[in-house]
Amino acid sequence: MKPPVHIAVTGAAGQITYALLFRIAAGDLLGADQPVVLRLLEVPAAMGGLDGVVMELHDCAFPLLHGIVTTDDPQIAFAGAHYAFLVGATPRGPGMERKDLLQVNADIFAVQGKALNAVADRAVKILVVGNPANTNALITLRNAPDLNPQNISAMTRLDHNRAVGMLARRCGAPVAAVQRVSIWGNHSTTQYPDLNHALVDGVPALEQVDETWYREQFIGEVQKRGATVIAARGKSSAASAANAALGHMRTWIFGTPAGDWTSMSVLSDGSYGIAPGLIYSFPVTVSNGRYAIVQNLSIDDFSRRLMRDSEDELKSEREAVAGLL
Amino acid sequence: MKPPVHIAVTGAAGQITYALLFRIAAGDLLGADQPVVLRLLEVPAAMGGLDGVVMELHDCAFPLLHGIVTTDDPQIAFAGAHYAFLVGATPRGPGMERKDLLQVNADIFAVQGKALNAVADRAVKILVVGNPANTNALITLRNAPDLNPQNISAMTRLDHNRAVGMLARRCGAPVAAVQRVSIWGNHSTTQYPDLNHALVDGVPALEQVDETWYREQFIGEVQKRGATVIAARGKSSAASAANAALGHMRTWIFGTPAGDWTSMSVLSDGSYGIAPGLIYSFPVTVSNGRYAIVQNLSIDDFSRRLMRDSEDELKSEREAVAGLL
Repeated sequence: MKPPVHIAVTGAAGQITYALLFRIAAGDLLGADQPVVLRLLEVPAAMGGLDGVVMELHDCAFPLLHGIVTTDDPQIAFAGAHYAFLVGATPRGPGMERKDLLQVNADIFAVQGKALNAVADRAVKILVVGNPANTNALITLRNAPDLNPQNISAMTRLDHNRAVGMLARRCGAPVAAVQRVSIWGNHSTTQYPDLNHALVDGVPALEQVDETWYREQFIGEVQKRGATVIAARGKSSAASAANAALGHMRTWIFGTPAGDWTSMSVLSDGSYGIAPGLIYSFPVTVSNGRYAIVQNLSIDDFSRRLMRDSEDELKSEREAVAGLL
Repeated sequence: MKPPVHIAVTGAAGQITYALLFRIAAGDLLGADQPVVLRLLEVPAAMGGLDGVVMELHDCAFPLLHGIVTTDDPQIAFAGAHYAFLVGATPRGPGMERKDLLQVNADIFAVQGKALNAVADRAVKILVVGNPANTNALITLRNAPDLNPQNISAMTRLDHNRAVGMLARRCGAPVAAVQRVSIWGNHSTTQYPDLNHALVDGVPALEQVDETWYREQFIGEVQKRGATVIAARGKSSAASAANAALGHMRTWIFGTPAGDWTSMSVLSDGSYGIAPGLIYSFPVTVSNGRYAIVQNLSIDDFSRRLMRDSEDELKSEREAVAGLL
């Protein structure tokens, strides 16, 4: 039996994690031969609810689940962690300004970044899911100077999967036939879901859908999908977010398929003229646990404008939390 | 690519199904090479919420998910279904007597049994999860005379898994070391979780735990575990129930491991003196998709009394719904 892998998850009593933890424990992340230890972080007020989640994890009798640690101390949660899902974040409350929201979350992720820097496994892969995810990831990265920036990313996989699903349905094709969808920018309504390079059954997607649908419907529907789901369910996306987190991390570990790529929010190196130092979503390939931003894609003026809009939003978010960088 | 398997799920906008559907679509039920079509049944009032769940299923871009049908008509939901998870049931409302609860659910399962009888695949495997599960399964069975009674069962796998987990923790052993736990009777607080035949690391469990713990603590904790989880979470067990439903169905399809058994509520054939015709939880082995009640276990007076108590409860439930049998 392999030694267990330690997986830290924050916001562990929340809705997304409730959809995530049981799949990790069942083997959906690392496979049916890899034992895991779950290291669950919550705020003190949520520890009672977390106890209930732990009971249910025990009640599954998962053979792969070799241990559960619960704590409100990031130094304990992240000790020796090989993977960290940073899901917990403070949602926008009544009367809270956007700047306040950024600040309160920045404080959380500064603490967690420092703790990861101090105690996590040196090769820890960190995925930030909690919103504002890109800027939270930036705070984490800047507070973890001893970790490789390659190992810190934010999630735009849910947006990517939404775009893949919408395109497949539009074309009447199976989702497996869709390749090379790209999400650029921020995980927010300014993101740019780009079909210019996408293929369906190996044929350019934009030869199979009309441009009006793409520009005037598809882009907005992907950008606002979260709100659409809330309107229907009365709750924000949880199972699909958890699934995207699993998918993001699996791709990061096991790689992208030949001829395809995924979307990850990672540290900009200046590719495509995006300001270096932002956590920005790019199309990436992954191999041997390392991502590489896809290079040399042609970017038309329409795309350029949307990519810049989202970049500008990320710059303004960065300014709002400059004190912690 | 194999042709898709049709999986019907009722109560499809509920909490247990929310934890179940995404795992089915990810391949946790039938494996990574088996496409599925989800056939989702809900009551009209819940169709809006179900739309939101369907959006999230789409937003996962599951390669195995070849179709989703949503309906409030059992004749559509069950058409050609190869597997049916009957999760939806009416919970006990304020001022509702136990007899009222039995009756309102009996009405639901009578309709569903008739629909399954009429339109499901002839080899459909039906798992009743919605409570009172055993009696609901009995109603289903009696309203589906053209289906093989072998193919209708109710879930005591959650109780089984809870007992396995508790015994493993008591012994400081991994859950994989626990075998031959048995749940007898009704999926209710009268159930009897039996360790007389259980093994931990191949050694009788009752040689490794003291009898006082077994009789005065373990049995009650398994029986009342659902309430304990509700007290901690503020909600009833959902992810662990969904996991048990997957486990039950997987074992039913793929079989029990050599030397071990599971617990399923199935039609009593009079084994162990239990009244024939009740849906009662027994230890069973499964091979080639068919269960067999484990025979010739020694039953001491203590066990016999608890087995009878739960049998008596099931008899009284049957009387309460006699008009539909």
